[in-house]
Amino acid sequence: MSYQIAVLSGDGIGPEVMAEARKVLNAVETRFGLDIQYTEFDVGGIAIDNHGCPLPDATLKGCEAADTILFGSVGGPKWENLPPNDQPERGALLPLRGHFELFCNLRPAKLHDGLEHMSPLRSDISARGFDVLCVRELTGGIYFGKPKGRQGEGDDEEAFDTMRYSRREISRIARIAFEAARGRKNKVTSVDKANVLACSVLWRQVVEEVAKDFPDVTLEHIYIDNATMQLLRRPDEFDVMLCSNLFGDILSDEIAMLTGSMGLLSSASMNSTGFGLFEPAGGSAPDIAGQGIANPVAQILSAALMLRHSLKQEEAASAIERAVTKALASGYLTSELLAADKRSEAKSTAQMGDFIAQAI
Amino acid sequence: MSYQIAVLSGDGIGPEVMAEARKVLNAVETRFGLDIQYTEFDVGGIAIDNHGCPLPDATLKGCEAADTILFGSVGGPKWENLPPNDQPERGALLPLRGHFELFCNLRPAKLHDGLEHMSPLRSDISARGFDVLCVRELTGGIYFGKPKGRQGEGDDEEAFDTMRYSRREISRIARIAFEAARGRKNKVTSVDKANVLACSVLWRQVVEEVAKDFPDVTLEHIYIDNATMQLLRRPDEFDVMLCSNLFGDILSDEIAMLTGSMGLLSSASMNSTGFGLFEPAGGSAPDIAGQGIANPVAQILSAALMLRHSLKQEEAASAIERAVTKALASGYLTSELLAADKRSEAKSTAQMGDFIAQAI
Ligand SMILES: CC(C)[C@H](C(=O)O)[C@@H](O)C(=O)O
Ligand SMILES: CC(C)[C@H](C(=O)O)[C@@H](O)C(=O)O
Repeated sequence: MSYQIAVLSGDGIGPEVMAEARKVLNAVETRFGLDIQYTEFDVGGIAIDNHGCPLPDATLKGCEAADTILFGSVGGPKWENLPPNDQPERGALLPLRGHFELFCNLRPAKLHDGLEHMSPLRSDISARGFDVLCVRELTGGIYFGKPKGRQGEGDDEEAFDTMRYSRREISRIARIAFEAARGRKNKVTSVDKANVLACSVLWRQVVEEVAKDFPDVTLEHIYIDNATMQLLRRPDEFDVMLCSNLFGDILSDEIAMLTGSMGLLSSASMNSTGFGLFEPAGGSAPDIAGQGIANPVAQILSAALMLRHSLKQEEAASAIERAVTKALASGYLTSELLAADKRSEAKSTAQMGDFIAQAI
Repeated sequence: MSYQIAVLSGDGIGPEVMAEARKVLNAVETRFGLDIQYTEFDVGGIAIDNHGCPLPDATLKGCEAADTILFGSVGGPKWENLPPNDQPERGALLPLRGHFELFCNLRPAKLHDGLEHMSPLRSDISARGFDVLCVRELTGGIYFGKPKGRQGEGDDEEAFDTMRYSRREISRIARIAFEAARGRKNKVTSVDKANVLACSVLWRQVVEEVAKDFPDVTLEHIYIDNATMQLLRRPDEFDVMLCSNLFGDILSDEIAMLTGSMGLLSSASMNSTGFGLFEPAGGSAPDIAGQGIANPVAQILSAALMLRHSLKQEEAASAIERAVTKALASGYLTSELLAADKRSEAKSTAQMGDFIAQAI
């Protein structure tokens, strides 16, 4: 099997963790007899520096020609004061999501055995563990709804955004949540604000309809304000959380922080043809870039998600995930996951990549 | 001084905690020579049962005739399956906020000394304590923006909501946040999603302009997704958080849960004339209603906020707050604030009210 991957490493720690993901992918190629071709393109801040915009035409064309996108991370202090539309994150990610209609965003987050102390939750709560998959709608809602803009003058000047969802948009993401629940704990919690938003009333209705096709999956509805609260008290009672674009943005970050180990979390953004963008959940971490201490696991797990969801290489994906679990279980950890007095045992970015590649 | 208060006790534990707030207000009347008249009106579920709607005309008229509103809590399983618009919470609270233009919502939340173990946060984080005032815009944004509705048919049927903010709306709530910061730690953190929403770009701009009149107050901006995360890691670094209607709904609940003692939190919703609605942050808790075990402190502190903000009786307000602090510091606690093995020492709803009234 032969594949074309567009590699968009981006800024900060992006390039260094991407190098480790490539190591691991090389190991997987050999072991499973795959043929993967990589083409690198600039994105984010480095693309602003080199080409004047965060998502140059050549990058977009390169992604179009590829089977899928492996993404690093973008942004940093250098580009922070640009107008919002020109900034690396929003100027690269939103157009990519829109252009390829990557409506389905999967953000898995679990508390790893032995890393409970990293969670900001009270020890009796984190001791129960949790394993949540956030399924976020990514090309609709208030992110892309029209009209959006400004009008009027002086004190009357106003800005407006439109939250908009069609039955079609809601049911396609809902189906994905229910299907995902079947491979997990058979529970979907749909997050909305149906006591205030017309979009949420339709959302709840369509989710109920889709649920009829999944009688084996339990469905619950929860208001977004209550969801942010209950995740703090009983995260172990959630399985799949189904969210609109804005609520998924907020909740998936809350859940990521609850694991306390952002360097381990990856995410998949896909369209209906299987084309996707796979990226770590954390940011470009400019403060630790170039020191060889960044955790490459999130980037490596993004490659696993890419193999599973875009390239349909389930065995190769699982092999990577097993190798990562083995590394963590052997106490093979980068410094941010170690208590201050254990930091001397920390592994470097490259050591992590080597260990995981060898374990394949 | 003579005042007219509209008392809307509502459902669940509402009436029983309101009875204790009245006890405490009576003590304050005597001590400070005030003359407070109370008129009770149905609201929420009980109003649906007695009059067919959650906010009857008589209740609205009664509120109009009063100097201010002391509110209990509304809702319960009995009315949960009504259409959203007819439900107790949304059918009573939103029209009251809109009708009286209660644009300014203050939600103070702090971790009380000795109650750190109630917080769902890890002990080293809760040990640092926190004291956050959430200032939430309450009559604009996506809650009230027009158009809002549905159109189309079949798979194309869609729903839409409009988020809308004018300079005037943003600057009046921003001023309140900056003024509040002056009596606290001189820091305002403005919460938005300026990398996606046109409303947030205007929000950030107007907040910057207002900040110029408060050179002594430090201003920071934070994205809503990042705010939900940072509150988990370093809640002690926040002071005043300034939020739009939707983001304030979400964040204020997260912060309330972080205290772990919802029964102690109250909130104030006010308009520009000083008229307001004062209520506990927690819900109607139908599961414990009628057992005499509900914590009346949030309702009692709502009365204090009412005295301070609507009736301008600062001394009386402080006297209540001191009495509450005394009760808590003496270990005078209702059962939900006690560890399982200490529940036998729990005070009843009425005992709490008596102690606080006597301490005035
Ligand atoms: C950078 C930003 C536009 C983006 C979003 O809000 O979706 C980010 O927060 C994310 O969650 O991927
Ligand atoms: C009941 C609901 C409409 C309300 C809101 O969303 O504002 C509630 O959650 C609140 O925060 O007071």
